Amino acid sequence: MSKSLTEKLSELAKRRGFFFQSSEAYGGVAGFQTFGPEGAELKRNIENSWRETFSDSLGHREIEAPTIMPEPVFEASGHLDTFDDMIIECPECGTSSRADHLVEDNTDIEEAESFSHEQVEALIKEHNLECPSCGEDLSNVAVEDFNLMFETSIGPGSGQTGYLRPETAQGIFVEFPRLKEYARNQLPFGITQIGKAYRNEISPRKGLVRVRELTQAELEHFIDPEEDEPRLEKVEDVELKLYSREQQNAEDGEPQFMTVKEAVEEEVVESDWIAYYLGIAKQWYEEIGVDMERFRFRQHQNDELSHYASDCWDAESQVDGDWIEITGFAYRGCYDLKKHDQYSREDYKIFKEYDEPKTVEKNTVSPDMGYLGPEFGDKAGKIAEKLEEIAENEPEAFEADKVFVEVDGEEYSVPADKCNFSVEEVTENGEHILPHVVEPSFGIDRMVYTVLAHAYDEDEVDDEERTVMRFNEEVAPTEVAVFPLMDKEGLGEKAQEVADKLREEGFSVKYDDTGNIGKRYRRQDEVGTPVCVTIDYETLEDEPETVTVRDRDSTDQERVEISDLADYLA
Amino acid sequence: MSKSLTEKLSELAKRRGFFFQSSEAYGGVAGFQTFGPEGAELKRNIENSWRETFSDSLGHREIEAPTIMPEPVFEASGHLDTFDDMIIECPECGTSSRADHLVEDNTDIEEAESFSHEQVEALIKEHNLECPSCGEDLSNVAVEDFNLMFETSIGPGSGQTGYLRPETAQGIFVEFPRLKEYARNQLPFGITQIGKAYRNEISPRKGLVRVRELTQAELEHFIDPEEDEPRLEKVEDVELKLYSREQQNAEDGEPQFMTVKEAVEEEVVESDWIAYYLGIAKQWYEEIGVDMERFRFRQHQNDELSHYASDCWDAESQVDGDWIEITGFAYRGCYDLKKHDQYSREDYKIFKEYDEPKTVEKNTVSPDMGYLGPEFGDKAGKIAEKLEEIAENEPEAFEADKVFVEVDGEEYSVPADKCNFSVEEVTENGEHILPHVVEPSFGIDRMVYTVLAHAYDEDEVDDEERTVMRFNEEVAPTEVAVFPLMDKEGLGEKAQEVADKLREEGFSVKYDDTGNIGKRYRRQDEVGTPVCVTIDYETLEDEPETVTVRDRDSTDQERVEISDLADYLA
Repeated sequence: MSKSLTEKLSELAKRRGFFFQSSEAYGGVAGFQTFGPEGAELKRNIENSWRETFSDSLGHREIEAPTIMPEPVFEASGHLDTFDDMIIECPECGTSSRADHLVEDNTDIEEAESFSHEQVEALIKEHNLECPSCGEDLSNVAVEDFNLMFETSIGPGSGQTGYLRPETAQGIFVEFPRLKEYARNQLPFGITQIGKAYRNEISPRKGLVRVRELTQAELEHFIDPEEDEPRLEKVEDVELKLYSREQQNAEDGEPQFMTVKEAVEEEVVESDWIAYYLGIAKQWYEEIGVDMERFRFRQHQNDELSHYASDCWDAESQVDGDWIEITGFAYRGCYDLKKHDQYSREDYKIFKEYDEPKTVEKNTVSPDMGYLGPEFGDKAGKIAEKLEEIAENEPEAFEADKVFVEVDGEEYSVPADKCNFSVEEVTENGEHILPHVVEPSFGIDRMVYTVLAHAYDEDEVDDEERTVMRFNEEVAPTEVAVFPLMDKEGLGEKAQEVADKLREEGFSVKYDDTGNIGKRYRRQDEVGTPVCVTIDYETLEDEPETVTVRDRDSTDQERVEISDLADYLA
Repeated sequence: MSKSLTEKLSELAKRRGFFFQSSEAYGGVAGFQTFGPEGAELKRNIENSWRETFSDSLGHREIEAPTIMPEPVFEASGHLDTFDDMIIECPECGTSSRADHLVEDNTDIEEAESFSHEQVEALIKEHNLECPSCGEDLSNVAVEDFNLMFETSIGPGSGQTGYLRPETAQGIFVEFPRLKEYARNQLPFGITQIGKAYRNEISPRKGLVRVRELTQAELEHFIDPEEDEPRLEKVEDVELKLYSREQQNAEDGEPQFMTVKEAVEEEVVESDWIAYYLGIAKQWYEEIGVDMERFRFRQHQNDELSHYASDCWDAESQVDGDWIEITGFAYRGCYDLKKHDQYSREDYKIFKEYDEPKTVEKNTVSPDMGYLGPEFGDKAGKIAEKLEEIAENEPEAFEADKVFVEVDGEEYSVPADKCNFSVEEVTENGEHILPHVVEPSFGIDRMVYTVLAHAYDEDEVDDEERTVMRFNEEVAPTEVAVFPLMDKEGLGEKAQEVADKLREEGFSVKYDDTGNIGKRYRRQDEVGTPVCVTIDYETLEDEPETVTVRDRDSTDQERVEISDLADYLA
């Protein structure tokens, strides 16, 4: 049986230094991967391209917050209560499994994640599901919650409980009171962050798809939901492949192609802001080499939505027939800022100035304390406070002769003319609002994996099988490889010279002088270098000097003058 | 009393978004800082400059390993046993303090870190030191070890113990068996990594100097200690300010100025490799704006050396009179690779091929099993093995008639002629060696702090006090700020156009149209933008169009044609 793409990719990744399981010398730990030299460079290129597209070009600013955060943050955000997966532990061998995956893997059910514990327990019983490790019957075993945050203790002694952040977003939300100052309290503004996030998965998969330590690139765009509009015209003609909730639930439902403009007009995508970012993102995926034949935007089902999101679309890529979520586009509303506003001691609102001051009517009282004091003694203060409340809520009470007030369970009556009730016109310059948040959230490891999988190709060159990574130039770990045909008779020196010159011109260059030329080409093909430049004996003979330029994809070779090389490559 | 630089810097950092204590809305947690937009950009610029200098230009490769690693790694590396600080816990109020710092802060002693527990306990008793929190006498309280690694549990149930790595280096060492393959088993080669490291400090300081979550940039240069030499000629004339062990211990000891070449020749720096990297690093510090008047290289005292290092120099910068370690240059020998070679199941040696195969004499035996079998029964195999050992270690034994062998406590005699002892010539192509490691290890947070502190300046402009960050262009968060004088009559559009054009030319550009021009200049001065470009009414009138270019340091203004702007700025 021929190998799957996943298997071939995993072998190539290990052989060429894209990624491999960490600490294998000690048996490895599931869910932790190390990026080797090629993979780290590919990942960095993808991150830099993301930064350029989603931060710099849009005028957003990037911050860097710590990965360890204190417990109260996650009490407020809801992660301590709800960031759980369903776990079932085998009473026989002690193996823990994700209960919903157990159901999905052994039945026709696809979305068990959204079911209740009771539903999952019933399904396990109904299908007589067994422990995947020892075969024990799990019919009567309870399904429990398992919180996915890594816990640690900060400082000596009993210390303070901290968690490795499960998303970079909270590092932005928590600091909103300061970030709004840097934005001079003007909405809209966007804050981005690229950094590590951690999820203590119950059963991580091999490779980069479900890892316990991951890199996220998140953009939190803070907007005034009543006033701010995205610049839809920038992306209105971008064509999207949308797999809506409706189509997913239909008998023969299929993803539909439509432009951003159509998606908004036909309300396939509810939020203009989400539609806007789908458009920006679609262009970016193409730029970094995601194959649009193996790509779609999928709307979340209602029972799939996170606790904070009102509408959510995922970008999904296909590898070996499986759909992988690579980005979530969520309209988080004011959920997070509201929570932190309630739980913390800081103010997460923004003062929104009106275009013109508004005049509003305000009911006030100014009780005659010279009367209230002697008459009511130590209750006078509380009675006055009560009168203010009544003025605000039941102003009509002051139309009677006497106003009745209840304080500490006793009723008192105050002559209306001692209350000095009046209606005043007050000028207000604005109001304090909680911004809403639009969040495109990218899983960088899965982006790297998708780019690798979609770049992978095999063909034949000179009757030999060849593996070639067809990376776009934007992300290729190396742009140009430079070889001397041999490292003798001055070829090595000349090649070094050419390599240095290209580096100065801003190209990322690798120099290689080991093995025969054919082997060197294969090596560069496998790490996806678009162009190889060879310095041979002709180089030294020609006037002006020329080199052989070989194209990765076609394997065509051409002679180019050294002085034209930078222009030719650009 | 006027404020210290530290205080002023901390205020500016908060006000302008360089850095601030994280999660302050929840009271903050000591030792965790967030980089705001300006700080994150400054930090990224420093990291990219480091990558360019210490990885790309030197032909080293960068990897990215996880921050969580399993326990066996740190059993091998020695961190589980020895990565401790001395802690003393107040029996009255429970406050934990660093015992050595308690001594240093309250006596004339400067280097208590290298003392034993007993010495520190004696000093506490001798000076009647008290709990800094409640004043309780600590004379008879024991000093304990406190391990600085953050611990966590991986996976559900009892899980597997993991630690947040205390240095990025171990992520490189552990993967050496694979990394050597990517280097095609050829020494020397260098692997770099920029990433988070974690130290659960007992008493973190405010700001960026002693934090619990930090960024390191480490280079592990793997060398053959017998053959590989650094390219000293590249840096031989670089002048170093060296504060040697000898000078530190001398009565009027002072740092000495000498070139890299002199330092090596006079053996002030023992290792050529360390001297080489001091030279490379010195040039880099200058490039990113470290003030050489507030800088020195200091050699470690013998009792200060880490468990793995044979010689170590620190680069230190001075802020407010305090010396801060910003880089450690350590010759780690083969300590780490040897440990992992012993503790793990992988091979950490490199096969070193000889230039020419060596012929060596080898003693062999080929015992006559037809004799040994019947004669010695089930002991025959062990006796044959023993004979091989004797051939290797005491070949003269075969000169006698009989050879005596002890097996399982019994002595047996074997006729020499049944042993077939001979001396053969064997050709060996190479040997397996453990590479040595040269490690320059940079604390990026402290680099950022140094660059901020050394860039900080105050002067007077138009009779007003001004704070100005004199960043080098290499690291300034923003290279050019573009302002329209007003956002009307087409000035805004023209300014956007100029900003976009400069961005296309590769400049990092900020656009600002709020507040009066004077305020905008001050804002840019405080975030260290070298140049401001203003589009005013003259711009639209002039033919060809011109703008005002204002220099941060001199505050001089000049009119420049828009078409010349990019060249002018470059």
